[in-house]
Amino acid sequence: MPPKPWKVLSTQVNKSFRIFNLRTDRAYSPRTRAAHDFYILESTDWVNVIPVTAQGEVILIRQYRHGTREVTLEIPGGIVEPGDTPETAARRELVEETGFKAREMVLLGSVHPNPAFLTNRCFTYLAGDVVRVQTQEQDDKEDIEVEVRSLEEIPRLIRQGEITHALVLAAFYRYYLEYLPHLKAV
Amino acid sequence: MPPKPWKVLSTQVNKSFRIFNLRTDRAYSPRTRAAHDFYILESTDWVNVIPVTAQGEVILIRQYRHGTREVTLEIPGGIVEPGDTPETAARRELVEETGFKAREMVLLGSVHPNPAFLTNRCFTYLAGDVVRVQTQEQDDKEDIEVEVRSLEEIPRLIRQGEITHALVLAAFYRYYLEYLPHLKAV
Repeated sequence: MPPKPWKVLSTQVNKSFRIFNLRTDRAYSPRTRAAHDFYILESTDWVNVIPVTAQGEVILIRQYRHGTREVTLEIPGGIVEPGDTPETAARRELVEETGFKAREMVLLGSVHPNPAFLTNRCFTYLAGDVVRVQTQEQDDKEDIEVEVRSLEEIPRLIRQGEITHALVLAAFYRYYLEYLPHLKAV
Repeated sequence: MPPKPWKVLSTQVNKSFRIFNLRTDRAYSPRTRAAHDFYILESTDWVNVIPVTAQGEVILIRQYRHGTREVTLEIPGGIVEPGDTPETAARRELVEETGFKAREMVLLGSVHPNPAFLTNRCFTYLAGDVVRVQTQEQDDKEDIEVEVRSLEEIPRLIRQGEITHALVLAAFYRYYLEYLPHLKAV
């Protein structure tokens, strides 16, 4: 028999943080009838963006990340704020973090960052024919450097461990699935 | 100038949950000198496994996930417990969640599930020539159904939104990078 949704017996928000609320759900298993507590982070949706120039360059960013305490190589992205659509959030994060603007935005799809304990989705956009229109607009918590690479380098940067953020890998996989048709035929 | 690591002024564990400790770091920016609080989930490393049979089938699992409150289609995986290596954890999760055992385990690489607020890595293994050796061993919190698919279906399942877990997409991307050499030549 396929797994069934669990029945939620109680749900309680324990604490609010900047990017999520910590919530405890008590739920019982339709398989065993046993009840357990589950710790959930209620999160607003996220977006990330693959910005590509007309010359086939991709606009990456380097930034310090407090979880791993390391400087990482990523694509632009952020939170869908109240009142945003995913696309307006993607356009805003792109220009704020890189100073580049897109001629067209194409939704490549969405993923669940972690369905085990996060409630949200991350929407991935392809930003086409991007051009630099302004300087970056960084807030106090950001420290971002723009790095332009060729699209051809991305698989090597992933294989060599220079790009390690799972959401960035997932975004590039969606990109290659849509735009490198031989992959579809696998 | 490239971004520099922030100086951590204080660090405090606020609460321990089953799969992570919630920690608050106060750190100051080398760019602006302003200090901020950052909420971090200290997490042990995770593993996931792409189990492939000699016939080119891949062993997937369907399970209920409490973050999204939906039944998802994924690959096996779990936590690297104290005393585990990533490989022993991958072998254990594979047999417990699916009943299948691998003739060989190949490390495809590792990713950061989310370097912004998670401290850990997720290691991805290719489990080669898997065969069913026993029934699943599920604990009270699990409710897992095994689903055998052909490897050729995976890109379609991702494009159609049937597989949405970012760590599963990242795992399959590593697999295709290593084993479908035309992708490397992109």
